[in-house]
Amino acid sequence: MPRVAGIETRALACGARYHDRDDLLLVSLATGSTCAGVFTPSSAAAAPVLWSQRALRKTTQTRAILINAGQANALTGVAGEKVVAQTRDRLAGLMGIEQEQVLLASTGVIGEVPDLAAIEACLPRLVASSACDWQRAARAFATTDSFPKGASETTAIDGVPIVVAGIAKGAGMIAPDMATMLALIGVDATLPAPLLQELLRTAVARTFNAVSIDGDMSTNDTVFAIASGAKDHHPIGSLCERHAEALTAAFARVLRSLARQIAMDGEGIGKFVTLWTKGARSEEEGRRVGKSVLSSPLVKVALAYGDANWGRIAMAIGKTEVPVRWEQASIAFGERAEHVVFAKGEPVAPSPAATAALAHAMQDRRITITIDLGLSDAAPVETWGCDLTHEYLRLNGDYRS
Amino acid sequence: MPRVAGIETRALACGARYHDRDDLLLVSLATGSTCAGVFTPSSAAAAPVLWSQRALRKTTQTRAILINAGQANALTGVAGEKVVAQTRDRLAGLMGIEQEQVLLASTGVIGEVPDLAAIEACLPRLVASSACDWQRAARAFATTDSFPKGASETTAIDGVPIVVAGIAKGAGMIAPDMATMLALIGVDATLPAPLLQELLRTAVARTFNAVSIDGDMSTNDTVFAIASGAKDHHPIGSLCERHAEALTAAFARVLRSLARQIAMDGEGIGKFVTLWTKGARSEEEGRRVGKSVLSSPLVKVALAYGDANWGRIAMAIGKTEVPVRWEQASIAFGERAEHVVFAKGEPVAPSPAATAALAHAMQDRRITITIDLGLSDAAPVETWGCDLTHEYLRLNGDYRS
Repeated sequence: MPRVAGIETRALACGARYHDRDDLLLVSLATGSTCAGVFTPSSAAAAPVLWSQRALRKTTQTRAILINAGQANALTGVAGEKVVAQTRDRLAGLMGIEQEQVLLASTGVIGEVPDLAAIEACLPRLVASSACDWQRAARAFATTDSFPKGASETTAIDGVPIVVAGIAKGAGMIAPDMATMLALIGVDATLPAPLLQELLRTAVARTFNAVSIDGDMSTNDTVFAIASGAKDHHPIGSLCERHAEALTAAFARVLRSLARQIAMDGEGIGKFVTLWTKGARSEEEGRRVGKSVLSSPLVKVALAYGDANWGRIAMAIGKTEVPVRWEQASIAFGERAEHVVFAKGEPVAPSPAATAALAHAMQDRRITITIDLGLSDAAPVETWGCDLTHEYLRLNGDYRS
Repeated sequence: MPRVAGIETRALACGARYHDRDDLLLVSLATGSTCAGVFTPSSAAAAPVLWSQRALRKTTQTRAILINAGQANALTGVAGEKVVAQTRDRLAGLMGIEQEQVLLASTGVIGEVPDLAAIEACLPRLVASSACDWQRAARAFATTDSFPKGASETTAIDGVPIVVAGIAKGAGMIAPDMATMLALIGVDATLPAPLLQELLRTAVARTFNAVSIDGDMSTNDTVFAIASGAKDHHPIGSLCERHAEALTAAFARVLRSLARQIAMDGEGIGKFVTLWTKGARSEEEGRRVGKSVLSSPLVKVALAYGDANWGRIAMAIGKTEVPVRWEQASIAFGERAEHVVFAKGEPVAPSPAATAALAHAMQDRRITITIDLGLSDAAPVETWGCDLTHEYLRLNGDYRS
């Protein structure tokens, strides 16, 4: 992971939940940075989510982001609000910045309040510590992710080299109540906050919002993007300008990589599934259909058992109530959609050789499904997910018992 | 199960899929009967569903309903349409009635076409056979339900005794691709078709549509209601009339019983869950919240393992994006909501005795959860579901492999 000029990360083990590992992450933004955020739409959004949304409405001149791993601080009432207020004010005081220049995120068990005393005691040390690389930062805000998730790209604006880097923690649900997806994307370009927000919102829709592990939405999902302004280049007035194209593309690639890493680390995962939806009337419709298929317990169980059960895929398409043109529709397995199982409104009767080839392909740890809804010839829309395994049940059931 | 005057059921083993059991069901309606139907909103609705919807738009003077178990006739293209047309026309010919007086329903594997030759060969024998009781009828359209589902009530309209009887087959998903819920309700009262449709629609919303086994919607869900007109009573001009009250209530109780039986027979079920949602702004909102909780894989896994994990329940409430008034909200377990785990926006710290009592209650095969959203003091709304077990995975995974 390369450094992103103007953005520093610091990590520390504060011991609020974990032992022998970092669990508190501070991201410092140079003066002149702009910041944007996308948050869970859950009506049970955690206290730090509510604060960060409020703060970003007041100013996008953010100077610090503080993230703790272990307790979600969701549905924690007055006690949770107190933790938000005190850690925020303490950090602002230590750094000599305004309240609303501090953003917060938490991940961990719902209903548990972060240990205020432990965090407060750590803050001076954290602020004074030396900066760490982004790999260590990714580890500090992980919960039970099986690997740290990071991606980066180097691009250019009018010949000026630009770095885009991102880290994420999983929607892996690898431990219960830890559905949370957190991500942080940094770029050293100069971008007005509204453009950064637009860039982030668009990319999140196509990447993080195209992942389904189990259809359960966290109370804490948060993605922050920072443009540090460290590089001097021709100003960007609109994302449609030609010299912004390379940046937009690099930004999207970083988020796509992180989103795929999250799906690959899905809880109890046996198979990583990529689903292409063709022929939808809009990108949004294509993703809605894709996520319905990837969230269907019946589809996911079939995939876990290596069954190319297209009837359940069709059922999960149908339950979206999208008016599919079935006589034009198709369902295929395989990276090149080579195993067509349903076409033009009817099941495809396979040859014995084709049946054997498909059965063999279904044993892979990576499954690709291609659906055509027959409603348009728009470009295919990509979504990602995983199967539903006995391991998922064990991981989510044995906990707390 | 009592007889319903004016409605006869006949069952036969036609061998299209099963052996040594009935798999074809004929329901004959006396002249003067009215019929109503509620169908899956899936955009992948099966061929018989599409026909029955069309037929009921043409006439509600239905005379026959034919149901086959084994093949869903969904996503079967031209071949499936041919089966619908030929069985319908053959039956109409045998009974001397019009095409559109024949309704059809199928249940079974998606993508499989019913065996036309076997059904056609059976039809004359089926029509000529003697009527059977409703218990046998319930067995004839079951797939892998573990018990036949039936309920009945006797009520009166202005002193005239009225029978309401119903049978259903499970949303048990007890075998894969067999998500289908089919139900048939008969009443020997005299009811204009629009009133029967209204009675059915309202009761289905509160009963069958309040069940979630796994959130997967079948391509074949169908509920038919018949008013045979066999009894002479003061005519009913509106369901709001006082003398219609008892009928409406009896009808609702029969559907509620069938809906609960379907949830109790949920595939791989370990625990039957009743969820009461209080304080919603509308009945529909209460059911939406209830079904979100009952469809959440994380909640269902926790219940399977006997974990009173209220954080996941709150998560599943939150993902509906209903603006819950958390500071007034509560979550409780127990038939009398005696184990309060979350109240007034905060977790309830339980005494050791309370913890032990709750842990004990969670071992029951029947779990009751009560949620208060704090948005109104409206009457609680009931929904039903079950847990997510290793047995569900095995039942749905081992099949076809």
